[in-house]
Amino acid sequence: MRQYYFILADSELEIIPKEIQSERCVLNNARARGKAPDKILLDASHHHPAFRRLGGSDRRGRPDITHFFLMLCLDSDLSVQGRLRVFVHTRNDDVIAVNSETRLPPNYPRFIGLIETLYEKEVVPSAENALLELRHGVSLEALVAALKADEVYVLDVDGEKSHTVAEMLSESKGERVVVIIGGFSKGSYKSDISRLKPKPIHCSLGDRMMKVWTVTSKTLCSIEMSENQAVEAVTKKAKAPSKPRRARKKKEE
Amino acid sequence: MRQYYFILADSELEIIPKEIQSERCVLNNARARGKAPDKILLDASHHHPAFRRLGGSDRRGRPDITHFFLMLCLDSDLSVQGRLRVFVHTRNDDVIAVNSETRLPPNYPRFIGLIETLYEKEVVPSAENALLELRHGVSLEALVAALKADEVYVLDVDGEKSHTVAEMLSESKGERVVVIIGGFSKGSYKSDISRLKPKPIHCSLGDRMMKVWTVTSKTLCSIEMSENQAVEAVTKKAKAPSKPRRARKKKEE
Repeated sequence: MRQYYFILADSELEIIPKEIQSERCVLNNARARGKAPDKILLDASHHHPAFRRLGGSDRRGRPDITHFFLMLCLDSDLSVQGRLRVFVHTRNDDVIAVNSETRLPPNYPRFIGLIETLYEKEVVPSAENALLELRHGVSLEALVAALKADEVYVLDVDGEKSHTVAEMLSESKGERVVVIIGGFSKGSYKSDISRLKPKPIHCSLGDRMMKVWTVTSKTLCSIEMSENQAVEAVTKKAKAPSKPRRARKKKEE
Repeated sequence: MRQYYFILADSELEIIPKEIQSERCVLNNARARGKAPDKILLDASHHHPAFRRLGGSDRRGRPDITHFFLMLCLDSDLSVQGRLRVFVHTRNDDVIAVNSETRLPPNYPRFIGLIETLYEKEVVPSAENALLELRHGVSLEALVAALKADEVYVLDVDGEKSHTVAEMLSESKGERVVVIIGGFSKGSYKSDISRLKPKPIHCSLGDRMMKVWTVTSKTLCSIEMSENQAVEAVTKKAKAPSKPRRARKKKEE
């Protein structure tokens, strides 16, 4: 059975960077939440006034994207069947490995709290029961290499246009397939995709820039449909017809 | 062109009910947010300690489900093409009509604030530019009747099993298709589905109870795929073959 590895790459998930930890909006938000500013996730929705001091400020601080992505992945058929492993790779080369048994809070503030705890403890809920595990300094290249992928697909609005990722996958023979989705709302991958091995296949779902949750949803659906078709094809071959069919007209006599 | 109407039915979205407005967890949460308890949405994540006093307490207070549902619908191909209108129907027969131009906040607390404003003003941002509009006392039955649907599909875990809603839709001839998805995490529809006209077609996506976002995502993907196939079929018919084909063997002579 083919195994899938989804990576949300260069996702905009990070602890508030040092250079803005003493900005007023950050301090206010930290006080309101009863946490220290260096224990809080950057969130464009709260900390935007301080963003002028950050590079790439038009895309940073979007943990909501990671939340949506994970909620979709973890309830997918693939994940329920144990055929999907999910990783979040961030702009700072942090990697979160997500156990497929994880039941994440659907409530966003609770999700934020959980990821903040993860950044403190590096594993939650505990080392014996590691549902989320954080590693620092793992580049996208190193993560893909560690997964020993047979094939790597990169979802990319500039990639080859294809209505379904399924069409591309149906031609693939790999047993270990890595699918990379960008975890940002604007711009393109920060990581150098061209360095990935094996050489990634770029694919796109259309001309418009879609939200990450749309890309995730479409990719999951495409894969699941192509997998179902494969199963049906095998089942049809294996099964004898259950009731006698009317003899077909012979075509050529 | 076929038009789709998605209704999130019996969704667990409501202002905090009177009987628990003076509970401690509600008062604390209201104070922290600087709002009156009767202006706040019920949220299981904050107000659960007071739920023992509510009926149906195991499913109430889930505005996150509505948020996910709307984020997926509004960025879908169907919506971008202007072929999808979305409605949120709640357990109390409130109906929110969502203009497809609406750009909702992806940040959950901001979404909550927006819906609370909607419950105060009944239209946001303004009557001249009504992106979200709230009506009270509209049953699911009345909403479906008002949409003058040719066909009504109800997503229902006890419905007819079908891998793709597309298979069911491909046989349909209707121009105005209503798709009903339950906006709750547990149990079944509170509204009496059997009273809907035209008689609804029940369909299911599988045996397991899926999250509402998974159901939404799968339904959207199925429809979009079946629509694409229809477009491709038409295009193929219309186009002359670009290179000369080998003459087919005649079948019967």
